[in-house]
Amino acid sequence: MRFLKGHGTENDFVILPDPDGELDVSASLVAKICDRRTGIGADGVLRVARTKQSHEVAEQASAAEWFMDYRNADGSVAEMCGNGVRVFVRYLIDAGLVQQPELAVATRGGLRKVRVEPDGDITVDMGRPVIHGESVATVGSHEYTGLYVDMGNPHLACAIGDPVVQLDLTHQPGFDTGVFPGGVNIELFNPVGTSRAVMRVFERGSGETRSCGTGAVATAVAAANLSGDSTGTWTIEVVGGTLTVTLDEDTSYLSGPAVIVASGELMLSD
Amino acid sequence: MRFLKGHGTENDFVILPDPDGELDVSASLVAKICDRRTGIGADGVLRVARTKQSHEVAEQASAAEWFMDYRNADGSVAEMCGNGVRVFVRYLIDAGLVQQPELAVATRGGLRKVRVEPDGDITVDMGRPVIHGESVATVGSHEYTGLYVDMGNPHLACAIGDPVVQLDLTHQPGFDTGVFPGGVNIELFNPVGTSRAVMRVFERGSGETRSCGTGAVATAVAAANLSGDSTGTWTIEVVGGTLTVTLDEDTSYLSGPAVIVASGELMLSD
Repeated sequence: MRFLKGHGTENDFVILPDPDGELDVSASLVAKICDRRTGIGADGVLRVARTKQSHEVAEQASAAEWFMDYRNADGSVAEMCGNGVRVFVRYLIDAGLVQQPELAVATRGGLRKVRVEPDGDITVDMGRPVIHGESVATVGSHEYTGLYVDMGNPHLACAIGDPVVQLDLTHQPGFDTGVFPGGVNIELFNPVGTSRAVMRVFERGSGETRSCGTGAVATAVAAANLSGDSTGTWTIEVVGGTLTVTLDEDTSYLSGPAVIVASGELMLSD
Repeated sequence: MRFLKGHGTENDFVILPDPDGELDVSASLVAKICDRRTGIGADGVLRVARTKQSHEVAEQASAAEWFMDYRNADGSVAEMCGNGVRVFVRYLIDAGLVQQPELAVATRGGLRKVRVEPDGDITVDMGRPVIHGESVATVGSHEYTGLYVDMGNPHLACAIGDPVVQLDLTHQPGFDTGVFPGGVNIELFNPVGTSRAVMRVFERGSGETRSCGTGAVATAVAAANLSGDSTGTWTIEVVGGTLTVTLDEDTSYLSGPAVIVASGELMLSD
């Protein structure tokens, strides 16, 4: 089975080219591939299939040639991944499977518009953030008030006075289970001036991660909200690198680097 | 740059085939390769070079065709790695570079004799363990007495009454810095009957690891010592799998599985 490995701000993925939809990629095989010691190791798997040959998204085939079949590291199916779709498009470009700098990608969460920037960064339309008001996260003995932002998945983005670099995020922060019965992704950030923030993120189900695309957008929304804005461009420094978020009246854009670091053949099987 | 990835009881390695000694593998490139998010990810790198073309071990060329140039994940040079040499030989066999089931491998720590067993397990002669007497390790508030065993590197192997599975090894256990001024690898084990032990290991410089070849031998030595023996065959269960250690009058043998899981091309460079 052919594979590539790549990452976007250190959110890493194994890519499985499957243009004709011939691969039977079971949950257990995904888990084996993503195991960082006995497999290749990754945060998730991106199977690259033609949309018209993929039943679950066939209705998107007229708008998007390629379907990003995203799987979490445990093998479960997921709808979308903001950093994943950027790495996915880096592969399509590098492999010569698309030539134009703007394209749409089919996902279980619907079409995603993507643009390759002149400097090589890849920008994805992340959709319109929905603000639901304030809630509180608890880290150690500290309570931080933040903004509940829905990006398709729930986020609680908290501007804090303590340096985020000093936080201990080895344990699940506390949150209001009445507001977030299914859990929540928690961002803690320090605003820097009026267009930059330094962020750390604790993802539900994963713990602290080095980057989170939807979390970066939620942080930009919360940072803008602090100054009474709902539009603008924000630089979000995550542990794994730098992302740029642009908010306009209708939607949000996530932009940043995506690179492929290896390609080859897997000898793993079910 | 061509690579393979493999592991022995979940101690994992990136293999760089370099038969003619043409690769310039810097410390920074090794660190990039071993980064688990921005590279391939591994505990170390095994460069496979012909001994006669490798200045540092050229005197071993008459006995061993192949040199295992072992590097730690941080890029530093190391002498030997018991699980690494088993994965190294699995590669040589799979690649058709050696045909006979017994061979010697050149390492910076000297020649290592290796045997491929009929069941595919790979056995390496680990040399003669040297016992230096007792010392004490401290985990949390518990003190455990163990045996100081020198395997080329220092080990303190402690038989304990508490179930090793319940230990918290997230922090460096305490030890006598007068006895171990350069640090020590600490094994904690539960003997099971007279020929088996369940072991966890805290490696100096690395923290808890899923397997440690020299640590498994040190544990067998300490387990045998408890019953007044210095020879015999021990099954050592580590977190990453099962190893077999055989002790005789003159030396020790480490045996276990080694597998290759992927091969390909790296796009990383200095």
